[in-house]
Amino acid sequence: MSKLVIVGTVAFDAIETPFGKTDKILGGAGTYIGLSASNFNVDSAIVSVVGGDFPQKYLDLLSSKNIDIEGIEIVKDGKTFFWSGRYHNDLNSRDTLDTQLNVLADFNPVVPENYKDAEYIMLGNLHPLVQLGVLEQVTNPKLVVLDTMNFWMDNALEELKQVIAKVDVITINDEEARQLSGEHSLVKAARAIEKMGPKYVVIKKGEHGALLFHKENVFFAPALPLEEVFDPTGAGDTFAGGFIGYLAHSEDISFENLKNAIIYGSNLASFCVEKFGTERMKDLSPDEIDKRLEEFKKLTQFKIN
Amino acid sequence: MSKLVIVGTVAFDAIETPFGKTDKILGGAGTYIGLSASNFNVDSAIVSVVGGDFPQKYLDLLSSKNIDIEGIEIVKDGKTFFWSGRYHNDLNSRDTLDTQLNVLADFNPVVPENYKDAEYIMLGNLHPLVQLGVLEQVTNPKLVVLDTMNFWMDNALEELKQVIAKVDVITINDEEARQLSGEHSLVKAARAIEKMGPKYVVIKKGEHGALLFHKENVFFAPALPLEEVFDPTGAGDTFAGGFIGYLAHSEDISFENLKNAIIYGSNLASFCVEKFGTERMKDLSPDEIDKRLEEFKKLTQFKIN
Repeated sequence: MSKLVIVGTVAFDAIETPFGKTDKILGGAGTYIGLSASNFNVDSAIVSVVGGDFPQKYLDLLSSKNIDIEGIEIVKDGKTFFWSGRYHNDLNSRDTLDTQLNVLADFNPVVPENYKDAEYIMLGNLHPLVQLGVLEQVTNPKLVVLDTMNFWMDNALEELKQVIAKVDVITINDEEARQLSGEHSLVKAARAIEKMGPKYVVIKKGEHGALLFHKENVFFAPALPLEEVFDPTGAGDTFAGGFIGYLAHSEDISFENLKNAIIYGSNLASFCVEKFGTERMKDLSPDEIDKRLEEFKKLTQFKIN
Repeated sequence: MSKLVIVGTVAFDAIETPFGKTDKILGGAGTYIGLSASNFNVDSAIVSVVGGDFPQKYLDLLSSKNIDIEGIEIVKDGKTFFWSGRYHNDLNSRDTLDTQLNVLADFNPVVPENYKDAEYIMLGNLHPLVQLGVLEQVTNPKLVVLDTMNFWMDNALEELKQVIAKVDVITINDEEARQLSGEHSLVKAARAIEKMGPKYVVIKKGEHGALLFHKENVFFAPALPLEEVFDPTGAGDTFAGGFIGYLAHSEDISFENLKNAIIYGSNLASFCVEKFGTERMKDLSPDEIDKRLEEFKKLTQFKIN
């Protein structure tokens, strides 16, 4: 079985959407990626940090999904990273109300000994130097996927470019791809980003789906049209988790199989947004995922003679 | 061979994009629909009106594409409908600089005798009463497709609802679908619009593709990711023309074949935006369309075992 190392925040979120409001609930990129990837048969470990205030039950939840939590450092006298945000009515944009780095400020990632030979590495959204720190500890990865965001382009561009140069796949949203490349056309943006290092560029467009670029090849996976999007938090991370989870499980990193991974990413993300936070991801069954795959086929597959 | 009646403006456009600016050039929904549908083997006629200022060479262009122009009334002492607009830098939005209805103000559509038994009817964007006037003249259509826009929702909603109640398919953009239905979710919007009459609802999302709804079924066609969109004018009409042209040619109005028609609509629209106005549509070859179909397949088709 393949090994997958996930680095990313394990955190508290407080979320407001037009449909309601949560107190501090389980969140963080590492959490969403881990839960999503756990739907595939793979040995995964999360590398992260939490404070003494982080409930054991959340750690137990991750363990119950077969996620190795040895790499989640617990800083007893520290506080867990906290993010709070309010979504606008259309759910396409949000305001950050509060960000408390807390223990994340001094985070020094440590990959568990048993995972240093992991074949698959998912660098979830975090400071590029933390992402680099993880890369330095793994010996011979087969595929490294990077997720990042505009915050690091604004505040740590040089370090970010160092990470980008070392990864196989980058996942990034459309506006971020434009910012990083200086190109408005996503086709040109992807081409420019490929020149920075990654062989594959995945551009996430939220409710408008995701594009996979590789040289002259393009593949597109739509988001599933849903009756209601309840809470978009974690959708991008869940997409990334489904993407790398599927690849690690199938052990095939051809372009043809990356297409499938994009479909599984969209598949998993379509569940994530149906409930607040990680709620929907906690109790997802293989049957539900299979059924949704059929919906994706109906949505996109056609036969023209 | 099937007969197709197209009602829509045949007009002058003056367009500004970040890439340049045109004088008065050939435009109009009827023109774009006609040129697009002419790529399929079908007998089509445009029902419209122009002024004495409309160049014979434009009429000759339509005739050369096997489009019957008997239904294009020429008001000798009148002036042709004129629209002028300026696109913003991202090409996703535009300002209307000028609209001169001219001969369109008193337009009374007359379907040529030979086309009253047409099986396929495309009601291009125009006043709903004009669209109704065409429907009253055709005896036994097999499929009626309606395209409309927010302007009529704002200014002639009751008349528009009368047309909507009589058609089989409505094509409309995402914001218009939300306005017409009062629903933000496109799934709910489509369901609400189906209740107004149409069996099929096509929601156009511009660069983000198009959705086809029918009861519990949804199909999605992406827009082809292009290096550069030069001028979006007429893309929606070209989409509609490809859609109905393919259906009229294949004479199959099953949901499965409507999927294919959506793909052909996107296919044709992807050419339209590559040059100013109708320029790209004038010299399109069957070979180019076939090749682009292959690109659409590569873009969307996958195989998961």
